[in-house]
Amino acid sequence: MSQGVEWSLHACLNLAWAHGAAVTATRLAALNDLSPTSLNKQLQLLAKAGIVRSTSGPAGGFVLARDPSAITVLDVVEAIEGSAGAFRCAEIRQRGPLPASGRTLRNPCAIAATMARAEDAWRDVLASTTIADLSATVEGQVRGVPVAVRSWLTAG
Amino acid sequence: MSQGVEWSLHACLNLAWAHGAAVTATRLAALNDLSPTSLNKQLQLLAKAGIVRSTSGPAGGFVLARDPSAITVLDVVEAIEGSAGAFRCAEIRQRGPLPASGRTLRNPCAIAATMARAEDAWRDVLASTTIADLSATVEGQVRGVPVAVRSWLTAG
Repeated sequence: MSQGVEWSLHACLNLAWAHGAAVTATRLAALNDLSPTSLNKQLQLLAKAGIVRSTSGPAGGFVLARDPSAITVLDVVEAIEGSAGAFRCAEIRQRGPLPASGRTLRNPCAIAATMARAEDAWRDVLASTTIADLSATVEGQVRGVPVAVRSWLTAG
Repeated sequence: MSQGVEWSLHACLNLAWAHGAAVTATRLAALNDLSPTSLNKQLQLLAKAGIVRSTSGPAGGFVLARDPSAITVLDVVEAIEGSAGAFRCAEIRQRGPLPASGRTLRNPCAIAATMARAEDAWRDVLASTTIADLSATVEGQVRGVPVAVRSWLTAG
């Protein structure tokens, strides 16, 4: 999994804390000492997925396109990494001198089915956690983080 | 995830069906029309993890090192891919002008914690499925597959 996932989740959290104020990629990147060019590429992927949108003009930048409670961690991960699972089944059971065929092929390969069940379990956790949940967790740990971040992001 | 995972799971299943008869990497590879050299590399990783062992001599080859009911899918996946999760947290919250510190760092980053929960859910599914379970599933789908595979593997 690329580091873009971590960057993008932090960016979404920071944009949630910006409360609708548009923030440039450069300023968002500076907050976590990231490459602005690289972060901008991730933000473009998030925009393509309808998670953020960019506003133009002198005070332009990025804002969340939806309420933080309507953006799941899975949405962000899939925006960056795509929705294909990590396990790619090449159906090698159909190859060689005893190829699976007919009746066997009406069932998914037991191996692929197990890997798919595991990936579903992984997705379920990520789909049940929103950016709003992450924000609440951070604020529960240390009150004032969202306010401090918003102040810093909008002071530029 | 590398295709070595799919290859290795099929190899373990085929070795389970060989019922303790030693099978060469070449013969195992031929069964699914795979590269013997590449499959041999995976088998070496499985041997290093104590999942298979090689026997020497003219009838030498690979056998499962444990009962199929004592080898989980997770064992095989981790033998090939390692046990590090797909998500690597670089703790970017500690960087930049508002670094997390002190009280905040006593808690794991909410993002990393969520990704870890998802990976635990993924691992749980793979750890609760054994090679014996996969074998039972295949035999439940089409009786006779294990016998046919054993006959072919040991006919060489």
